[in-house]
Amino acid sequence: MRPGAKTKTKVWTVEGEQLRVRPDNLATEEPLEIRLLAGGIRRTIAVTMRTPGADFELAAGFLFSEGIISNRQDIHRITYCVDADLGVEQRYNIVNVELSHTALPDLANFDRHFAINSACGVCGKASLEALQIQGCSPLRPGPAIDPQLLYSLPDRLRTEQSLFAITGGLHAAALFDLTEKSNAVAPLQVLREDIGRHNAVDKLIGWALLNQQSPLNHYVMLISGRAGFEIMQKALMAGIPIVCAVSAPSSLAVQLAREFGITLVGFLRGERFNVYAGIERLNGLHPDHP
Amino acid sequence: MRPGAKTKTKVWTVEGEQLRVRPDNLATEEPLEIRLLAGGIRRTIAVTMRTPGADFELAAGFLFSEGIISNRQDIHRITYCVDADLGVEQRYNIVNVELSHTALPDLANFDRHFAINSACGVCGKASLEALQIQGCSPLRPGPAIDPQLLYSLPDRLRTEQSLFAITGGLHAAALFDLTEKSNAVAPLQVLREDIGRHNAVDKLIGWALLNQQSPLNHYVMLISGRAGFEIMQKALMAGIPIVCAVSAPSSLAVQLAREFGITLVGFLRGERFNVYAGIERLNGLHPDHP
Repeated sequence: MRPGAKTKTKVWTVEGEQLRVRPDNLATEEPLEIRLLAGGIRRTIAVTMRTPGADFELAAGFLFSEGIISNRQDIHRITYCVDADLGVEQRYNIVNVELSHTALPDLANFDRHFAINSACGVCGKASLEALQIQGCSPLRPGPAIDPQLLYSLPDRLRTEQSLFAITGGLHAAALFDLTEKSNAVAPLQVLREDIGRHNAVDKLIGWALLNQQSPLNHYVMLISGRAGFEIMQKALMAGIPIVCAVSAPSSLAVQLAREFGITLVGFLRGERFNVYAGIERLNGLHPDHP
Repeated sequence: MRPGAKTKTKVWTVEGEQLRVRPDNLATEEPLEIRLLAGGIRRTIAVTMRTPGADFELAAGFLFSEGIISNRQDIHRITYCVDADLGVEQRYNIVNVELSHTALPDLANFDRHFAINSACGVCGKASLEALQIQGCSPLRPGPAIDPQLLYSLPDRLRTEQSLFAITGGLHAAALFDLTEKSNAVAPLQVLREDIGRHNAVDKLIGWALLNQQSPLNHYVMLISGRAGFEIMQKALMAGIPIVCAVSAPSSLAVQLAREFGITLVGFLRGERFNVYAGIERLNGLHPDHP
């Protein structure tokens, strides 16, 4: 089945004392593999996490904006890959761009920028399986926290975001310590800012590693903005049991959180939030999984 | 000099009929090269665009969250590279991670994911020079537009963002056509949404290429969120003369815009915006460059 731009799910909404389950739509995140074909040779040029839709435009635009093709005439045809050995989940995640030339362009310089291993196939499921092959296993249960603990975190993140205040242009990620909680307040242990959300998370994980704080199994991580696959993969590697985002998670972030036992909270704003996975770590909420 | 997390600049602020120049701070965006050292061998493992600060944490966290090291003991020492042949601008943009082992870990699988060409050196200036080497030259002057034309664009972007409305979690990029302007309104020509801002821009550029609309020299591009180096590089390749962002640009985005003659507008909200580069395309504003 062709993946859509949105993915249906169920989500727990916590608002003050109120808890309800409701259907929700997530932005779909799935890998897209872009292959070049010329003179009988086929070469994978990139795999990008994207939202399905306008895939041929994405492939053409990527090749053009990266300088691999220089005009419309360079393209003979764009199709989805229909190799017989492709699983149904990979169909529509691989785009073949047939060039009008008899040979592939010189990719020597480009390869070193973007060459990607796609041996394990490209679909969300394969991306999650690759984590298992890497040795990732689901996190252990616990710790459990009071849902109210989360309400104050975004304000404390914003207060400490000194660079954001000055530049208006940085992502932030912070760790809140659950071992020292008292009066339902988890102290902010460390906050890092960066132009790249993944870098801010790596800085936190590196802080923990260099300060003998790993694994991070007694921390809540809060990130400004959205939670995608990459952020959740890093949280999993670092053993962070509870991840909160100020904005929306992607479909693949939710899938990863559910398969690997991470509690994923989104739209944490004021006294409300959504729980997408791992609700059993939130005390007093119904234990059935959405 | 060690790069700071923020970069001073001057910016034009347009608010209704008012225009003023004022000092401003941008989030610094500079490449960081992470090198692994073990048993006398040195290997570049990644180059990431980041905001300077906590660079050792970033390197350690990246290596850990990507599974290249598994604990603190794997690291012997982290230092900035002090090779004599390094230019002053590259100092503090290269981090050497010396491992405790006598050999580099098996990177066969990893290399295919992340291997990067850093032959041209790593600093913002080198990143811009690399574009020139690729054949990018500054855009030609024009077209000129009325500043008021920009005010309505964010609302029109938001109105058309159908997936964002449903999922709350997507970036958008849109092209507004300047050739058909009447009553100071530029029609929205095409809008694309994606979980990745760079993908949304690639989809626009691909749309143009596949529909014989390239180069995009009579369009304004508006992006939700922030403008970084990668977005501006794609705009340059596609010949887009005016780029507007709803949020802040990075230091390197501004540098690129100024060197390659792109008009860069940020914080476009309501009847106000900042101009970071290329103010000469905005009619009636003082032609002196900030």
